[in-house]
Amino acid sequence: MNFMTPGETPGADPLDLASIRGTLTRLEDTIIFLLIERASFAYNPRIYDPQGFADLGLDRSWINWLLRETETVHAKIRRYDSPDEHPFTARDQLPSAILPPLEYPPLLYDPTDINVNERIMDFYVGQIVPSITRVVTEKLGKVDDDGNYGSAATRDLDALQAMSRRIHYGMFVSESKFRSAPADFVPHILNPNPSALLALITKPEVEAALLRRLDKKARWYGAELGPEGDPVAEREPKVQPEEVVRLYEEYIIPLTKDVEVEYLLHRLDGLSQAEIDDLVQNGTASKALSKQPPVKAKTARQS
Amino acid sequence: MNFMTPGETPGADPLDLASIRGTLTRLEDTIIFLLIERASFAYNPRIYDPQGFADLGLDRSWINWLLRETETVHAKIRRYDSPDEHPFTARDQLPSAILPPLEYPPLLYDPTDINVNERIMDFYVGQIVPSITRVVTEKLGKVDDDGNYGSAATRDLDALQAMSRRIHYGMFVSESKFRSAPADFVPHILNPNPSALLALITKPEVEAALLRRLDKKARWYGAELGPEGDPVAEREPKVQPEEVVRLYEEYIIPLTKDVEVEYLLHRLDGLSQAEIDDLVQNGTASKALSKQPPVKAKTARQS
Repeated sequence: MNFMTPGETPGADPLDLASIRGTLTRLEDTIIFLLIERASFAYNPRIYDPQGFADLGLDRSWINWLLRETETVHAKIRRYDSPDEHPFTARDQLPSAILPPLEYPPLLYDPTDINVNERIMDFYVGQIVPSITRVVTEKLGKVDDDGNYGSAATRDLDALQAMSRRIHYGMFVSESKFRSAPADFVPHILNPNPSALLALITKPEVEAALLRRLDKKARWYGAELGPEGDPVAEREPKVQPEEVVRLYEEYIIPLTKDVEVEYLLHRLDGLSQAEIDDLVQNGTASKALSKQPPVKAKTARQS
Repeated sequence: MNFMTPGETPGADPLDLASIRGTLTRLEDTIIFLLIERASFAYNPRIYDPQGFADLGLDRSWINWLLRETETVHAKIRRYDSPDEHPFTARDQLPSAILPPLEYPPLLYDPTDINVNERIMDFYVGQIVPSITRVVTEKLGKVDDDGNYGSAATRDLDALQAMSRRIHYGMFVSESKFRSAPADFVPHILNPNPSALLALITKPEVEAALLRRLDKKARWYGAELGPEGDPVAEREPKVQPEEVVRLYEEYIIPLTKDVEVEYLLHRLDGLSQAEIDDLVQNGTASKALSKQPPVKAKTARQS
């Protein structure tokens, strides 16, 4: 994500809700592109099996091996210093950056402590890959392994990282909504009430519009264009629009909300009573955050 | 590339020209997607400067460092064993695969010996990146550096690898055309005549159709879709269609032809006069290739 030109509005506050929505909308396109690329290879279930390459000495699944190797490279170029990037490999297994850190503005409470990548991996491997690769499986005569383990896994890796960015970006959504009305949130944080927090951040009409838009985007970007560059109606789309909608409806949206609520539950960690009172009365959420050291949230979900 | 389901026709001969064209056409979409992704970051010329990170101890440019690190990972999972994959890093700097090799059918003479990646890097960094990032530069107030070196370079890497696949795939085109009429090619190989070979493989009407199609594809896939998922006419496309057309017209097509001619010039290396006579008289190109050991072409262009 480019924090220097967030969303579609250069120079805008990265916590401006319209700017965040611009970023999330742009990520929809990226995720659709990446699913299209993955869907040109077979399912290849062996690459997700922890024992799939044990005979070659791998201590983990093919995909987890590739993730660790690639994230090791990316950690060196400070990818995981960015507040919207979360590695799939445990941070203590990754090296430090070889570059000095970028000066990110103090936007979030502690973005590195919430990490739901294991759950992303679960639904992606268990639900999404088998369904988007079904067309190739049919073409191969109902064989779900084409031996292209490297090609399939590198596409997986890109898709996983993009979905992870999308879902963890929920923290920016939470922070933005919190700042716009801290008094609404504070009681449900002090007396932890996840359902009330969920209700505060849920906008059914925004979700419905998102799903309608996704369906149309998947049809548009997944269209096969013929020899003259025009859409070919009778050709199967490169990715099934209903699969893209299902991905968001059943997995990405619910998991994003989990991240949003989890973030809010820890939003006041480390603040004094006086600072919290000040937030409620004066709504100076931004000031309170910038004074606050990055305290580790102790019970943040690590799954 | 999936050699198990080449092109759009499962089970088809990977050297069938229609199948090859299907593969190349599909790669157009991938390249457009990747340029769109790169275009959301600034030019960041520092990442291409061999001295750009010398103060941090890098012995090469940022992009070349990232290529070497990533290709090291991919070499382990046998990416460069595939006849259509060519590393940007010298092969002797890359490790061996940790997997046993896939059983690729004997398709090409010696695909690993022709490598034009240095020229791909030159036109991409010199001509393409500055022009597709111009919109971001304008947004940033005519600043061409947004500090997102990691994000920009990982997108570059994907785009470079896809263009490399596209261009080196010319060898499949050459092999296919050679097999369809060996007698036409043999005299211009024995008495090396690059212009005559070029004439034999050039199809102006195919190129013209390709450029028309690219323009339409870039408009289609680069379209901004609005909040309801419909194309927004007044929004700037994510990548300029004329830049995509120029990329192909000025760089990708000419360089592919260089690869095709270079490949043909070495197509008879290692064959006996009797085998060549047999090729000319009986057109058994396929048989002759499969008998032939992978001899290194000595003068293949390494630039």
